[in-house]
Amino acid sequence: MIHTHQTAPTQYVEANGIRFAYRRFGKAGGVPIVFNQHFTGTMEHWDPAVTDGFAKDREVILFNNAGVSSSSGEVPTTFEEMGANAIAFIKALGLTQVDVLGFSIGGFIAQEIALQAPDLVKRLVLVGTGPRGGEGVATLTPEAQKIFGATYDDPDHLWLRVHFTHSEKSQVAGREFLKRFRLRSENRDPEVNGKVAPAQIEAIVKWGAPQENPFEYLKSIRQPTLVVNGGKDVIIYSVNSFILQQHLPNAQLILYPDANHGSPYQHPELFVKHVSLFLGA
Amino acid sequence: MIHTHQTAPTQYVEANGIRFAYRRFGKAGGVPIVFNQHFTGTMEHWDPAVTDGFAKDREVILFNNAGVSSSSGEVPTTFEEMGANAIAFIKALGLTQVDVLGFSIGGFIAQEIALQAPDLVKRLVLVGTGPRGGEGVATLTPEAQKIFGATYDDPDHLWLRVHFTHSEKSQVAGREFLKRFRLRSENRDPEVNGKVAPAQIEAIVKWGAPQENPFEYLKSIRQPTLVVNGGKDVIIYSVNSFILQQHLPNAQLILYPDANHGSPYQHPELFVKHVSLFLGA
Repeated sequence: MIHTHQTAPTQYVEANGIRFAYRRFGKAGGVPIVFNQHFTGTMEHWDPAVTDGFAKDREVILFNNAGVSSSSGEVPTTFEEMGANAIAFIKALGLTQVDVLGFSIGGFIAQEIALQAPDLVKRLVLVGTGPRGGEGVATLTPEAQKIFGATYDDPDHLWLRVHFTHSEKSQVAGREFLKRFRLRSENRDPEVNGKVAPAQIEAIVKWGAPQENPFEYLKSIRQPTLVVNGGKDVIIYSVNSFILQQHLPNAQLILYPDANHGSPYQHPELFVKHVSLFLGA
Repeated sequence: MIHTHQTAPTQYVEANGIRFAYRRFGKAGGVPIVFNQHFTGTMEHWDPAVTDGFAKDREVILFNNAGVSSSSGEVPTTFEEMGANAIAFIKALGLTQVDVLGFSIGGFIAQEIALQAPDLVKRLVLVGTGPRGGEGVATLTPEAQKIFGATYDDPDHLWLRVHFTHSEKSQVAGREFLKRFRLRSENRDPEVNGKVAPAQIEAIVKWGAPQENPFEYLKSIRQPTLVVNGGKDVIIYSVNSFILQQHLPNAQLILYPDANHGSPYQHPELFVKHVSLFLGA
């Protein structure tokens, strides 16, 4: 049976004393792509239009990092440790080289993976993310504080604000995304517990802390990198994507119009095409 | 006979009292793409890998604006006037809608075409360019002053400095470009006369002049726009491409790694693919 985003069973692998939950599907045989998720997200928060889009040409690996949803353990309070856990997970699958995609704080983890285990990473895709000491990261942006601090009649509607702009076109795309996001009906990941957000926020504050030559470390990330964002990201300001491109030794940048933090979910087909061109289809 | 960059004959059309030289080739029947050239460039300065790349799917129109090379008239000292001349040229061909690509100062002209004749323009591609009042434009950048002020044993080598970075990989790509650039052997455009550079520089100084709310006018350019540049453009700083994306209502941005002003000539295949995805292949 060929599995998809909707049918791939949740599997488990043990490493670093953590039982990692993961799903693996798509066309095997090449370099798999490992997805690193955003703030408080689980494997369920990826867009099937994106993951299944990639799965046509390559193997897709989703997982929950330590302490998140169906994975055991605690969420560490630094991205260094989350990166180390992700590396332990990837190696526990017996993989020696992967492409790494990170979305938002998953992009911080992706950078840590490349820094700590450069030989493990062929290419990097950094989506809606930024560098250490990036603009507005340490305190969360005022917009992010407001959006994550609000309550919503339907909790899923949080993501209409996080991932999409106020424009009608973007909101329509957002509602389509929410439908896709609920398509998987069986064996869904549980929502994260109450300890996840505070630990991740503590890590974000440390990552964003002002420091001397904050972008110097990016010179050590030698992998070909694709940086992608919406041009109107209010969660991690779009300028941080420009900064990443300017300071990484080998990075391409793509910014999409009228798109907020979740630009891949607004333009899933175009995003998959752009990333596939970059990864080598 | 199917014409290419190398074989398309130079034709002429009269408008605004100017005899415009142009070449037209590729797959007719759709929306043609009109190319606007950089500082002191002629129809010969386009990369055949780019123009013939587009010509497979769409009609390509190259031309010399007023006073440039094989076109008659004088180079005006404002981009407003150059834009008006370009519009007159496009209309003289009987065209009612075109895609417009502008490279460097050709991107200033492309913006003027969209502002002055919005119905004429379906989509815009702005390469290695910037907005009015852009960073480093008014005075030319120190790097541009040095590069254009130097003399070269082989005059073509100027373009190795303008369009490519110092990296070995980029310089190798540059030498490949220079070979392609000399491939057309018959009926080449003459180099521009001595009055072209001073007039274009006068126009650049005016375009770059500091002003209040310099980017406000970009809100009037409603066409879907693709902004492309190298991440290390020293002729028109790359940050100007980011500024364009941030202020245009509907713009996508792509920046290429280790690429200077001539990023399309360094990555012609990828550039043609990205632009074709944008234009609708």
